[in-house]
Amino acid sequence: MSKNLTSRAEDYSKWYNELVVKADLAENSAVRGCMVIKPYGYAIWEKMQAELDRMFKETGHQNAYFPLFVPKSLFEAEEKNAEGFAKECAVVTHYRLQNDPDNPGKLRVDPEAKLEEELVVRPTSEAIIWSTYKGWIQSYRDLPILINQWANVVRWEMRTRLFLRTAEFLWQEGHTAHETRSEALAEAQLMNQVYADFAENFMAIPVIQGVKTESERFAGAEETYCIEALMQDGKALQAGTSHFLGQNFAKAFDVKFTNNEGKLDYVWATSWGVSTRLVGALIMTHSDDKGLVLPPNLAPIQVVIVPIHKTDEQLKQIGDVAKNLITEFKSKGISCKYDDRTTQRPGAKFAQYELQGVPLRIAIGPKDLENKTVELARRDTLSKENVALDGLADKIDGLLKEIQDTLFKKALDFRNSHLTKVDTFEEFKTVLNSKTGFISAHWDGSPETEDKIKELTKATIRCVPLDQEKEAGACVFTGKPSVGRVLFAKAY
Amino acid sequence: MSKNLTSRAEDYSKWYNELVVKADLAENSAVRGCMVIKPYGYAIWEKMQAELDRMFKETGHQNAYFPLFVPKSLFEAEEKNAEGFAKECAVVTHYRLQNDPDNPGKLRVDPEAKLEEELVVRPTSEAIIWSTYKGWIQSYRDLPILINQWANVVRWEMRTRLFLRTAEFLWQEGHTAHETRSEALAEAQLMNQVYADFAENFMAIPVIQGVKTESERFAGAEETYCIEALMQDGKALQAGTSHFLGQNFAKAFDVKFTNNEGKLDYVWATSWGVSTRLVGALIMTHSDDKGLVLPPNLAPIQVVIVPIHKTDEQLKQIGDVAKNLITEFKSKGISCKYDDRTTQRPGAKFAQYELQGVPLRIAIGPKDLENKTVELARRDTLSKENVALDGLADKIDGLLKEIQDTLFKKALDFRNSHLTKVDTFEEFKTVLNSKTGFISAHWDGSPETEDKIKELTKATIRCVPLDQEKEAGACVFTGKPSVGRVLFAKAY
Repeated sequence: MSKNLTSRAEDYSKWYNELVVKADLAENSAVRGCMVIKPYGYAIWEKMQAELDRMFKETGHQNAYFPLFVPKSLFEAEEKNAEGFAKECAVVTHYRLQNDPDNPGKLRVDPEAKLEEELVVRPTSEAIIWSTYKGWIQSYRDLPILINQWANVVRWEMRTRLFLRTAEFLWQEGHTAHETRSEALAEAQLMNQVYADFAENFMAIPVIQGVKTESERFAGAEETYCIEALMQDGKALQAGTSHFLGQNFAKAFDVKFTNNEGKLDYVWATSWGVSTRLVGALIMTHSDDKGLVLPPNLAPIQVVIVPIHKTDEQLKQIGDVAKNLITEFKSKGISCKYDDRTTQRPGAKFAQYELQGVPLRIAIGPKDLENKTVELARRDTLSKENVALDGLADKIDGLLKEIQDTLFKKALDFRNSHLTKVDTFEEFKTVLNSKTGFISAHWDGSPETEDKIKELTKATIRCVPLDQEKEAGACVFTGKPSVGRVLFAKAY
Repeated sequence: MSKNLTSRAEDYSKWYNELVVKADLAENSAVRGCMVIKPYGYAIWEKMQAELDRMFKETGHQNAYFPLFVPKSLFEAEEKNAEGFAKECAVVTHYRLQNDPDNPGKLRVDPEAKLEEELVVRPTSEAIIWSTYKGWIQSYRDLPILINQWANVVRWEMRTRLFLRTAEFLWQEGHTAHETRSEALAEAQLMNQVYADFAENFMAIPVIQGVKTESERFAGAEETYCIEALMQDGKALQAGTSHFLGQNFAKAFDVKFTNNEGKLDYVWATSWGVSTRLVGALIMTHSDDKGLVLPPNLAPIQVVIVPIHKTDEQLKQIGDVAKNLITEFKSKGISCKYDDRTTQRPGAKFAQYELQGVPLRIAIGPKDLENKTVELARRDTLSKENVALDGLADKIDGLLKEIQDTLFKKALDFRNSHLTKVDTFEEFKTVLNSKTGFISAHWDGSPETEDKIKELTKATIRCVPLDQEKEAGACVFTGKPSVGRVLFAKAY
């Protein structure tokens, strides 16, 4: 397989798929719509998990684990208040395989081993968790409950793409229970802010915080907060959501508590989640035609050292230099790999690490040994320079921070230059068909208009920005009055 | 619900179940055989995970993620070399629910949405992983593959018990691929050693390393290494296994590689795993009639501080002392909780932390403020002393290490005093019926004898110890010759 990728200009979608596979991030599996996350891709997810987990715990949350399966009847309870609930899910109906009497060597489902009640593989865990919380909550003293779960979930998607949309994916789902409306609302907002901070400071992805319109809201939510990012092809990607669920789930599962005035009331709820989809967002925000570009804060390997030698003696000397550097790097919390494989030429290694987005590459050759220098290459700018060994760790420490900032600023510039205010529907369509990106426009607030625009342009309302300016205007489609602009885009 | 537990002497099994629920570790869920792991129980599992993950990475392993589902046909491939493979598993046959036309408000499986091939929820991942490795391995340059996965698995168990045996459980499963038999064998042995080190140094559980007899071996394994622990009721518990799989899975999934002499050969394999069952082992090794006893290395909270006050002013002063202590503890890596809830009396807090096994409890009252002292209580010995504030952090640091050692030694003494050499079948039965524990006895090496002993006594061969002494003897049951003693026990 050629190491060269299809260019983004030629075919963005093909570029993405090739990059994911060639950079060893993930691949399709023998199971329709399910992916194998390979070690390098999983290492990025682990770095995301570690940081998010830290942020969740810092804001008072604890982890727990709830069953993979949800009895069908619990979905029925939920169904009553969430009409639009997705029903495309994996259903377990039997609990045994047996040797097939008609086909030696084959297995079949044992028809005798039928479950009395079918079990759904969780597409999300509100139902099983709220049926559990019912047993945990009697009084206001039992509140708040601030729980997060790291888990796999399954949604039977018809069209799947590695990381972006897969039948099974990994995610975290927070599920909290509160005494009051305002406390639950504040929690939903706080967690959306946590997601925004994580996206911007760790993933170097600028995001717009907003709320979803009614038709884009999570079924059962009273308000869905979200962070919306812009990919390099001008399409938006919802990177995380945080739902204020009101008392809907408490009512569906009959979860009441005695408040501090001694009165019974339903509990207030939130839920919030991000998934392995974030890896897709990371790739599509920063990478280029040479491959992955990773922000240093999430790079499994921040610096790679490649020896360039002709003799074993040279390799030994370079190895000594590398060893010292790694010790120095380690003391500064910089992760470094020394690649002294002799089965690969330096050129092949350079290509591999470029493809895999390692932020900094150090090459050390015989000349460098003499001059006490190294060749230092930046992945993001593809620039190279000769640098003194002396003080290298400090320089690298600074460079990693600079790269992190540069990537964020570059993505922010791109996003800002692809956010266009339009005031007519002609303009709206022209922008969508040329540079795409976010379109900031007035909307009359009706689902009918929203649907019609979607039908005509494939653009949806990504969010009503939290920092929306109050500005009287006329809906870009109907001309009816509007109080402020919302953001439209084509989306993943 | 009373806080008092049934005593171990009265009913060990009931004591265990009550402890798990009352100490807030886990509970049964709405799904048959599946448990909810509550935050406190999950925090213990997280500490186990963190340490094991560190040990796996230190020995060169990387994490990855493979699909939850295994197509039935992959099981058929495996089935050919693993006759005894468990077929009690959750089977997904459909991918959609729909509103039931005959029962308004109810859902049913959409009969049109039947899968062409049934999907099994993984009971273990050899099949899906080896079908994937086939695409990754062409040459010896692609080996070894050293991968671990943290995942949930499902086995349709009929009789379940919290942590010890549940339909769904959490575990890690390592799956490695090697060029040579000796390398794979060494890997299987290394990982069993990692498990033994973890059990002894972190869980404070003494274990015996050994190999399983043929009938107790994992289906498809050529050798199963294991660590066996002894619980307080004298029953053994298999705490971890590491399998040398030979070329069985490579043959089942046709995974060949070109070796460095240019010849094609099948790949050599291992797999190894430990699960949330370890939490059950931890509980049953150390805990007492008052509740959980946790080794400090795995305690989510190592020290708790409880204020004893009459006035708000006292509470404020105690709070200041506690704050300073926590800062000092933190700098030494000691985790500490300050419980200043005013909804609970100190006595209730003492009982709670005793039940939850917090290794050290500090109480601070008005007298302590005057004298610059605290009351320090040890959970393992239930002893109390007054201690000077000055130098407290150092004292606690030392005490935590002492408690860790004490728990291990206590468990080791118990294990050693419950490991009995017997040379007649009468003795064998007497020991089993009195103090139980491990029985070290000669065995003629035949599965028939093993079966017969199991049938008559319910004791199984837990392992052939790795440090088995060569000692000519006569089988305790048949009198036939034996080359060394093996370990029998009743087991979980």
